[in-house]
Amino acid sequence: MDYSKKALEMHEENKGKIEIVSKVQVKTREDLSTAYTPGVAEPCRKIRDEKSEVYRYTSKGNLVAVVTDGTAVLGLGDIGPEAAMPVMEGKAILFKNFGDVDAFPICMDTKDTEEIIQTVRLIAPSFGGINLEDIAAPRCFEIESRLKEELDIPVFHDDQHGTAIVVSAGILNALKVVKKKMKEVKIVINGAGSAGISICKLLLAIGFEDIILVDKKGALAQGEEWMNDAQKNMAQVTNKEEKRGNLKEVIKGRDIFIGVSAPGIVTSDMVASMAKDAIVFAMANPIPEIMPDEAKQGGAKVIATGRSDFPNQINNVLVFPGIFRGALDARATDITEEMKIAAAYAIADIIKEEELTQEYIIPGAFDERVAKAVANAVRQKAQEQGVVK
Amino acid sequence: MDYSKKALEMHEENKGKIEIVSKVQVKTREDLSTAYTPGVAEPCRKIRDEKSEVYRYTSKGNLVAVVTDGTAVLGLGDIGPEAAMPVMEGKAILFKNFGDVDAFPICMDTKDTEEIIQTVRLIAPSFGGINLEDIAAPRCFEIESRLKEELDIPVFHDDQHGTAIVVSAGILNALKVVKKKMKEVKIVINGAGSAGISICKLLLAIGFEDIILVDKKGALAQGEEWMNDAQKNMAQVTNKEEKRGNLKEVIKGRDIFIGVSAPGIVTSDMVASMAKDAIVFAMANPIPEIMPDEAKQGGAKVIATGRSDFPNQINNVLVFPGIFRGALDARATDITEEMKIAAAYAIADIIKEEELTQEYIIPGAFDERVAKAVANAVRQKAQEQGVVK
Repeated sequence: MDYSKKALEMHEENKGKIEIVSKVQVKTREDLSTAYTPGVAEPCRKIRDEKSEVYRYTSKGNLVAVVTDGTAVLGLGDIGPEAAMPVMEGKAILFKNFGDVDAFPICMDTKDTEEIIQTVRLIAPSFGGINLEDIAAPRCFEIESRLKEELDIPVFHDDQHGTAIVVSAGILNALKVVKKKMKEVKIVINGAGSAGISICKLLLAIGFEDIILVDKKGALAQGEEWMNDAQKNMAQVTNKEEKRGNLKEVIKGRDIFIGVSAPGIVTSDMVASMAKDAIVFAMANPIPEIMPDEAKQGGAKVIATGRSDFPNQINNVLVFPGIFRGALDARATDITEEMKIAAAYAIADIIKEEELTQEYIIPGAFDERVAKAVANAVRQKAQEQGVVK
Repeated sequence: MDYSKKALEMHEENKGKIEIVSKVQVKTREDLSTAYTPGVAEPCRKIRDEKSEVYRYTSKGNLVAVVTDGTAVLGLGDIGPEAAMPVMEGKAILFKNFGDVDAFPICMDTKDTEEIIQTVRLIAPSFGGINLEDIAAPRCFEIESRLKEELDIPVFHDDQHGTAIVVSAGILNALKVVKKKMKEVKIVINGAGSAGISICKLLLAIGFEDIILVDKKGALAQGEEWMNDAQKNMAQVTNKEEKRGNLKEVIKGRDIFIGVSAPGIVTSDMVASMAKDAIVFAMANPIPEIMPDEAKQGGAKVIATGRSDFPNQINNVLVFPGIFRGALDARATDITEEMKIAAAYAIADIIKEEELTQEYIIPGAFDERVAKAVANAVRQKAQEQGVVK
């Protein structure tokens, strides 16, 4: 179904999707004197005297900025901050709907790394967390790492880590279906941009060992001249056998294909060249690297895509509401690798072993258990690690 | 009544006062596909192709940033961006309650004029208007004038102009009560900071002619060495007779006293030295320049304060919700002097001549007619002047 017309109508009718409402009543003089002057001076004084009281008396602790520069929006690319607004508002309502997080779109009129970092730093007092969204690579790496260092509130680039967490959750469950072991499987990830690299890093942190990253120019391997800095770093810790060549060559014999790349670039012959009971995560959107029926023809046992009209949808909405809910509840100062891993296991563990099937390795987007489980796991891990205020 | 305890409890119980909610339902896959991917791509494309469509498909047109650096908050002064948050959230809920404007607090971690300007400029794509709040003078002047120049959305410093508009409305009606004429009355304004200067400018623009501004060091008059640049400019257009001296000297024979200064600095003897049927606006908060009963003893005919427990409360809440409602509805690119004057008359005209009394020159804070009347007047004036997109 084509949602374009429906979406246009809905966006126009409602003039956007978010609204900022009062949690308290302002109907009488007394209400006004309590919520505003003169009463409001008292919480102000408390916070002036002890800054951390801002979490007690204001909305800061539940407010997340959804920050973008509009340069890598959906499949549309660099469409500018205004055009990014519908996506950021969409993100905001998902935050509220699934995690009871109050999220606000900050669409920035700059593509300059330093200006973005500076701006987020300067507006941070209003927020309990920062969700970076749809910012192009490679500047998204620098922006995230610098802000993580400089701010004492959690910073999370959803396009990287949200995707990595939900993919990891899906892979963990897919392994159970095909009865293979984490330490033994061979993985190929196609697409060595921010999402692919982030997935790779998280899978390594979880304990997967044999991963090859492939980009348009071929497999990432030490000594390849065309790699950027982020890719060079990845070549150090992946592709131990130093395989070279394009996807068609490298995919042979692999147990798992993870695509965050382009439509239709995988054939059923290529799937057939993989190991028995192959796992295929084809997440290019809206058209996957290979359609599920073709992957099945090639012998794939478990198939996942980014689409809601096929089984096993890999959807970030399973991650970001719960991640922030947990981080905010813990008053976490960071979102660590361990917290991300805890989130991945929490999502995977929603489905009991006896319920797992080829077509049900990941909970549905509307499964209400997910955000709660993720939030609990993330909050507990943050407290355990002591990365809290 | 002391609202401190009540305010603390209320703020803690609700963890702040604002919440960001969805205007649309997200309960089904179809909802998700309409409000978010894949449907959301279509409004994005429309805005990419024609930037002004952002007003059609997003919340931008109803979103106002309440921007502060936390340096001049209430009577508390420079308490920092976190401690300013309760006031900015309060402002946000008043915007919503009285003007159906969605306002969001942006509390900035800098006091640097250029950094504040730059930050507002960079986050402007998300907003339909900018309300500057509780930023110390003199940097508030530079910040406002530069942002008005650089941005194509309305920018309004409420501490200056909101106060000026509501004071002007009150003065216009007080004149009717004492049956004096705009061109004939002599005014003294005590407090030549941002509020006092702004009130003076608006009264001059409305048509008042004889105004003296007084600061701690005495009357502003040409050649006084101690004046800052803003004050020197005002000395050019006020105090035509070049009176010098302190408030006690300068207040003699004046028809109208307007105080935006300090508690208790006016005595009933000083009021007695004013012209017959004096008008006294004593707006220092929470303790006025002179208490109403003392002003009455001195012979004042019309008395206004900033307090809700006396008659004639001069309250900005009568202004900013309607000003922005009107400006947003007109898609105004600026808030001009003429729009401010239209707002002042709209507030004054709420009260019919036959209803006017000494104790009823200004509508109450909860008079629902006010924001609507202000919004209409402001929208019409913007359209008439053609300062719209």
